[in-house]
Amino acid sequence: MLYSQGIPLERLGIPTRDGAEVESDPRRIWQLFADHYHLFVGTPTRAWMDYVFCEVLGVREQLNTESAGRVYQEIAARLDADDFRPRALFDRFNVEVLTTTDAATDSLEHHRAIRDSDWDGRVIPCFRPDALFKIAHPTWRDAVQLLAEVADTDIVHFRDFARALELRREFFKSHGATSTDHATVTPYTERLESGEVELLFRRGIHGEADQDDQARFEAHMLMEMARMSIEDGLVMQIHPGSLRDHNDVVEERFGPDCGGDIPVATEYTRNLRHLLNRYGNNPRFTLVVFTLDESTYSRELAPLAGHYPAMKLGPPWWFHDSVEGIMRYRQHTTETAGFYNTAGFNDDTRAFLSIPARHDLSRRVDANYLGRLVARHQVDMHEALRVIRALSYELARDTYNLT
Amino acid sequence: MLYSQGIPLERLGIPTRDGAEVESDPRRIWQLFADHYHLFVGTPTRAWMDYVFCEVLGVREQLNTESAGRVYQEIAARLDADDFRPRALFDRFNVEVLTTTDAATDSLEHHRAIRDSDWDGRVIPCFRPDALFKIAHPTWRDAVQLLAEVADTDIVHFRDFARALELRREFFKSHGATSTDHATVTPYTERLESGEVELLFRRGIHGEADQDDQARFEAHMLMEMARMSIEDGLVMQIHPGSLRDHNDVVEERFGPDCGGDIPVATEYTRNLRHLLNRYGNNPRFTLVVFTLDESTYSRELAPLAGHYPAMKLGPPWWFHDSVEGIMRYRQHTTETAGFYNTAGFNDDTRAFLSIPARHDLSRRVDANYLGRLVARHQVDMHEALRVIRALSYELARDTYNLT
Amino acid sequence: MLYSQGIPLERLGIPTRDGAEVESDPRRIWQLFADHYHLFVGTPTRAWMDYVFCEVLGVREQLNTESAGRVYQEIAARLDADDFRPRALFDRFNVEVLTTTDAATDSLEHHRAIRDSDWDGRVIPCFRPDALFKIAHPTWRDAVQLLAEVADTDIVHFRDFARALELRREFFKSHGATSTDHATVTPYTERLESGEVELLFRRGIHGEADQDDQARFEAHMLMEMARMSIEDGLVMQIHPGSLRDHNDVVEERFGPDCGGDIPVATEYTRNLRHLLNRYGNNPRFTLVVFTLDESTYSRELAPLAGHYPAMKLGPPWWFHDSVEGIMRYRQHTTETAGFYNTAGFNDDTRAFLSIPARHDLSRRVDANYLGRLVARHQVDMHEALRVIRALSYELARDTYNLT
Repeated sequence: MLYSQGIPLERLGIPTRDGAEVESDPRRIWQLFADHYHLFVGTPTRAWMDYVFCEVLGVREQLNTESAGRVYQEIAARLDADDFRPRALFDRFNVEVLTTTDAATDSLEHHRAIRDSDWDGRVIPCFRPDALFKIAHPTWRDAVQLLAEVADTDIVHFRDFARALELRREFFKSHGATSTDHATVTPYTERLESGEVELLFRRGIHGEADQDDQARFEAHMLMEMARMSIEDGLVMQIHPGSLRDHNDVVEERFGPDCGGDIPVATEYTRNLRHLLNRYGNNPRFTLVVFTLDESTYSRELAPLAGHYPAMKLGPPWWFHDSVEGIMRYRQHTTETAGFYNTAGFNDDTRAFLSIPARHDLSRRVDANYLGRLVARHQVDMHEALRVIRALSYELARDTYNLT
Repeated sequence: MLYSQGIPLERLGIPTRDGAEVESDPRRIWQLFADHYHLFVGTPTRAWMDYVFCEVLGVREQLNTESAGRVYQEIAARLDADDFRPRALFDRFNVEVLTTTDAATDSLEHHRAIRDSDWDGRVIPCFRPDALFKIAHPTWRDAVQLLAEVADTDIVHFRDFARALELRREFFKSHGATSTDHATVTPYTERLESGEVELLFRRGIHGEADQDDQARFEAHMLMEMARMSIEDGLVMQIHPGSLRDHNDVVEERFGPDCGGDIPVATEYTRNLRHLLNRYGNNPRFTLVVFTLDESTYSRELAPLAGHYPAMKLGPPWWFHDSVEGIMRYRQHTTETAGFYNTAGFNDDTRAFLSIPARHDLSRRVDANYLGRLVARHQVDMHEALRVIRALSYELARDTYNLT
Repeated sequence: MLYSQGIPLERLGIPTRDGAEVESDPRRIWQLFADHYHLFVGTPTRAWMDYVFCEVLGVREQLNTESAGRVYQEIAARLDADDFRPRALFDRFNVEVLTTTDAATDSLEHHRAIRDSDWDGRVIPCFRPDALFKIAHPTWRDAVQLLAEVADTDIVHFRDFARALELRREFFKSHGATSTDHATVTPYTERLESGEVELLFRRGIHGEADQDDQARFEAHMLMEMARMSIEDGLVMQIHPGSLRDHNDVVEERFGPDCGGDIPVATEYTRNLRHLLNRYGNNPRFTLVVFTLDESTYSRELAPLAGHYPAMKLGPPWWFHDSVEGIMRYRQHTTETAGFYNTAGFNDDTRAFLSIPARHDLSRRVDANYLGRLVARHQVDMHEALRVIRALSYELARDTYNLT
């Protein structure tokens, strides 16, 4: 938001690739942020921050140019206190499970450290192997090499590669994982003949794979992931439709994942057909599908989730994890898929302090949606109470096998 | 809905293709349905069923696990009574016209039976020739053979085929038909040269037509249907955008049309251009267009219906024949096309008992939409009363020439 | 609207290309219009006209069949009065700036006449060079010839052509212009190699360019326009996604631009990427992007405007400049892009009398949207007052450099 209004990322302290100097005084960055706090009016970011300041941090004045210094001091003092340490907040937030997203090759050492500590908070990993499916990417071979090392196996043929992935999934499971996550631009799925898979794999190994090769390989790997999910019980998630690093200028100066991820129209009905035909009727499989393309809610996703036993519709994601976004999600999906084919609320924030705000906002909007149905006599109160408990808690717990 | 939540279709008594045993005790199926009635909360199916149970069947308790047996008994008793026979309900529902959809080759014998009976209910056929346009389908030649028989004519060339269709339309008209109906995945229209049409027709006869041939043939046949409509006055309907039998597993076990029809993005502006250019300005022609892709309401369909004299926008269809769906339809189309370029409410239910519920729901949502306009002083009350009468009754009657 | 309901354009006095007689009695045309005034119920056209009749013209009775003659007389008398002359209304409407859209080759003589008059109303041109980019169009060479004449330069090579455009932009600026405007079906942008550009230009000059050539040339010219905007400071606007003159029958009989412009699905994320990558981070550049495809609001346009410093989201355009349309625009864009990445309200009406109505309607809907946020305690009142002032006035002034 600040960048879109002409504030250079350097002034916000974002480090550059070439090490050029950037603002390093946190008070000046905070003041700049406070000076532009009004830009966020009407956004979920603003709603979450207001909640965090007031409810989590106990700040009782509005953030603005004049109050910035005092608010900074107040927050700094609060964060120094023991009862604002992460584990204390984890307990205060009443978090039952927190899932991190981790590369397939991750050592999970921090998860082990938590497990080996005397703290009993449940923090589990999620298996995200995207980087290993991008056979046209310059770093793919290194990723495969690393996979061989961490899986302690040789990877020569595709079958070795698939086996190593199975081993890693097992490793993740042994650290508490209940799910996998997969990001693609297009959620295209297709089971390839083993000869073609081996050929694509070899092209990747020889650095000869192009974007078309990669698209076919990814389509096949989504099928493989579904197959493995049926075997090992990990819930499969697909997050498609974001064109990453749209802004070359920002990426070149600051590196990847610095904003500039822009959604594209996404097709599910034809793209997911192979996967759903082969695995979507299997009672041992759960597939949670997300979207950034709201036109697919009523057209494709609700009809698919309202039909296939394995498919659940993921909650409103990213730009749509917001008051209007969540309301649209319910308005566009409930009449076709009902409430019980949705996965329950979760979000992918890195802002730990905002977790209660996000869940609170989601519950409020869902309650509003249900309240409308009760007020119109479409749903009676005892049913609404049953549904809101499902939306707020049970569906997420049950979809992700978190019991 | 039940299948999506893991209940096998066999347990609901759906017969399998291979004759494998399925549940046959209606009471057990009913109990299973009642046990899962909460899954429908928030869906139009639930709203219609609640209405049917209460208003049509007079059941005064909520359906649930505990009440299932009593409700079953009560409904069974009601349905045995003479005043719940179909013709009695037809009169009680105050149905002026009921239209069935019939294959172009149908004998219409049941329509004749009604006409020859002493009952004066108006039940008329609608001409649906889809199967005759699918030249790549294995059963197409049989369908053409049947067409020749029922039209009592030889079909060698395309012109014979077209002539037979004209004869069948005449036959349908003589049984009261006022409309035709056409389902396609893509509403592509194009008038082909007669040489190409003949070639495609011959390929179909020789079993050599492929999907591309069929797409072109269907595009041409939609043009032919419009031409014939101008000649014989039948109102033409297009229902595009559903990918049928998405779920191979269900289709293989239970046959076609057992659920699993999933919408796809649909394009109208370019696809209908040929047809609308040639026939859309003709005052003798009426084309009613439906959609499952709500993104086309404001982008394509309202602008087209708001321009071409022949085109009317069909009511919200299938998944969108619902509280939120009808509201969105009015919100997205009225400002561009007005109310009077919409076709009035109709739906394609096979659930006879639900007809009053569906019309009631549609009227209520339209009245709500109008009420908002009145409350905001955009429309005054006497105009709103004129519009609601049009939306509830006159537009459907007039669009379909049912006077 | 009247044409869509079967009223021939001839009866509305629209002149035909072949000079065939059309209705010429304004009273009869007015009566016909009044007889069908109910068709507009629920449309913005109706809201604007009701406002114009009542607030601008002081007519105190509803227009209908019976009142048509009296209302006609009343309006005619009013329009004869001095205080209803255009300049008097311009002052009464409190218009600070009115921008016309003018071909790149326009002499701007009327703008000079205003400037040379004793009237100080600010009426400025907007540079619209679309016709000069359509190298496959039969009249393109004439347009280039005219460009050479008005720019007083020889145009042999593409560089001459580009230079002539720069001169014309300078000429427009000297007449007060602050912006350019560009209409395309697809907002595709790409910087071509100079050799390819020259080749395409020559093909156009030789009458050999086809539609693909033109698409690439237009993609390049949008890049050129952005480059020139950075140099001369004119704000760049893109209005894509309308398929013009969809109805051949109307175009052949009445000429182009007689209705029948129908939107198509529009893609921005990939199409604008080249332009935004090269110029979107430049603080000297402003790009205002409009759409007729509402599905792009939340999916593409709000994320893009919420990221690139140069990009602003244009207000709801054409069919969407309406009560529901403006509300949807805010609901779909605010949470991602905020209010301050939108360009402020403007519209492209040719109906001078409707200007106050349109701005009034826009302000009311924006105020309603803000009022909801205040009522829900998402925004407090002093912030809402700041935002509504921006939406009603400051954003348009600042985006278009109208200070």
